Amino acid sequence: MSALLDQGRTMCTPLLRQAVGRLAAPMDTIAAYHLGWIDRDGRPARAAGGKAVRPALALLSAEAVGGDASAGVPGGVAVELVHNFSLLHDDVMDGDEFRRHRATAWAVFGVAQAVLVGDALLALGIEVLLEAPQTTQVSASDAIRAVNVITSATRRLIDGQAQDLTFELREHVTVEECLEMEGNKTAALLAGACTIGAVLAGADAKTSEALGRYGHHVGLAFQSVDDLLGIWGAPEATGKPHRSDLRRHKKSLPVAAALADGGTASRRLAQLLADSKDLTDEDEEHLDVRADLIEQAGGRAWAQNEARHQYAAALDALDEIPMPDTVRQHFVAFADFVVVRET
Amino acid sequence: MSALLDQGRTMCTPLLRQAVGRLAAPMDTIAAYHLGWIDRDGRPARAAGGKAVRPALALLSAEAVGGDASAGVPGGVAVELVHNFSLLHDDVMDGDEFRRHRATAWAVFGVAQAVLVGDALLALGIEVLLEAPQTTQVSASDAIRAVNVITSATRRLIDGQAQDLTFELREHVTVEECLEMEGNKTAALLAGACTIGAVLAGADAKTSEALGRYGHHVGLAFQSVDDLLGIWGAPEATGKPHRSDLRRHKKSLPVAAALADGGTASRRLAQLLADSKDLTDEDEEHLDVRADLIEQAGGRAWAQNEARHQYAAALDALDEIPMPDTVRQHFVAFADFVVVRET
Repeated sequence: MSALLDQGRTMCTPLLRQAVGRLAAPMDTIAAYHLGWIDRDGRPARAAGGKAVRPALALLSAEAVGGDASAGVPGGVAVELVHNFSLLHDDVMDGDEFRRHRATAWAVFGVAQAVLVGDALLALGIEVLLEAPQTTQVSASDAIRAVNVITSATRRLIDGQAQDLTFELREHVTVEECLEMEGNKTAALLAGACTIGAVLAGADAKTSEALGRYGHHVGLAFQSVDDLLGIWGAPEATGKPHRSDLRRHKKSLPVAAALADGGTASRRLAQLLADSKDLTDEDEEHLDVRADLIEQAGGRAWAQNEARHQYAAALDALDEIPMPDTVRQHFVAFADFVVVRET
Repeated sequence: MSALLDQGRTMCTPLLRQAVGRLAAPMDTIAAYHLGWIDRDGRPARAAGGKAVRPALALLSAEAVGGDASAGVPGGVAVELVHNFSLLHDDVMDGDEFRRHRATAWAVFGVAQAVLVGDALLALGIEVLLEAPQTTQVSASDAIRAVNVITSATRRLIDGQAQDLTFELREHVTVEECLEMEGNKTAALLAGACTIGAVLAGADAKTSEALGRYGHHVGLAFQSVDDLLGIWGAPEATGKPHRSDLRRHKKSLPVAAALADGGTASRRLAQLLADSKDLTDEDEEHLDVRADLIEQAGGRAWAQNEARHQYAAALDALDEIPMPDTVRQHFVAFADFVVVRET
């Protein structure tokens, strides 16, 4: 797994740095801070700048169709730029002050700059793909298909964020609504990462569609696990406050599933949520009670089962298409990694 | 002039409405409010939703190269979407509460929604161009060239906004820096509008380049006039507060030119600006004194002259390429309209 991530980072970072370096000051600096390359004073940092799973998947998808990993580089960089556009803007919208154990860009540089740098990264993502035919073996028509992949993933990601914001204002969200939102907000861009390298390497529709389905299911598994970590994860591991999703009344999968259960614990949970809906919860004890009720109402087990179910569906999608054994093993290892984070 | 704008609106509005209608709730409603189609309670409005000059120019540019105006429609819609993305985000960044005599989207729906809807309009702009080959006679390769036009204009627009934000924190900005910023922030997208229809209609490089130069110079003329209106314009006409640019210490062209003059009035102005740089000016009398000093130091005349100079350069660019007489007359009338706004 770490070899796969290292390859993604090693091969994509030069183009990523070159692209970010084109931004007008001070956007280049702010993007470099957000990406973990420098600290807030501009000194080189060795912060954890995210695992860069999307670039790794993009390269792997090029190799899946017999292409060289390098064909996937513009796709990996584009997906990483779009992913970071969404992180920058989500942190503004959600008012999150910390990400990856560091102050978020808006908290350091202000809302205006964080919005603007996000905009710039989105536009850069498209630009990098449009340039691919000049700098690589990628054909113009494959580059366009890749722009299509990134644009539809971006649109779905934005739709998902709109749904997520709406859910925060609602008292009740069904499991189906929650899954649809997560399919847009998280799975669409992961599916894009698993498709874009293959598209740049000239994949046919059947292959890129199956890779996209693998990415979609892995993305949903990833989000189920993320939802579990948002309630039961250790702050040292997540880089977020303890019980962070409960603190902000997030309608995540375990909560939606627990509320759908309808039993005693489920009804007590619903009552607690209704009573505290206007509070910002800082009281650890209340949050612990809520976490226990979600578990008693089956929300934790439901989300664990959902992660396993999506994991299996991801592997089924992989089985539909031929690819080199080593590539398949990497895709399987990635799915394993996503589900294992749970523990 | 109004016939030209009417044609742009009439031909582009159906596709624009269709594109906006694809957004997940509540983004569709917020975009419709921002575009002046509905009021804040969702009732149909007949607000002035902007003049839609960019769609009109996009259609005209298709006609300039012998194409049908309809070939320019996806380009006109894309440019209008990107323009409105930038308005939504600029209003957030600048904290502006009013635009076109109405409360801005963030002031009504909150910062998070305004940022998100802006993101959505940018992505939609690309999407509309990518779809053009399926719905129109536009070839795939021309659609890609159009995506290129919109992406580079967007990147420059974002660079320009970064420069503008930086200038607000600086005590002094040169005329050259100001012109470069305005070239990015305003002229790049107008140049894109004047190019994109031609590109979609299959224009050669020389023609689209000349149309782009026309748009660039018209854009700079437009911005010179806008800078004049920001100091001397009537609030009824601009929809903004009296002396709005002075109120917010904007380093616009007349100010930069006045400060560069170095005479008595220029030095008094510099002193006044230095003394009041941390104040939010609500005192009309102080603003009037400042406007008078800018005029005495030649800043008003300089910007008027700059507008005329850019107007002439725009017409020179037009003269380099053949086009139907009626199309040329429309381009000239548009340049006239831009400069005449001054009075």
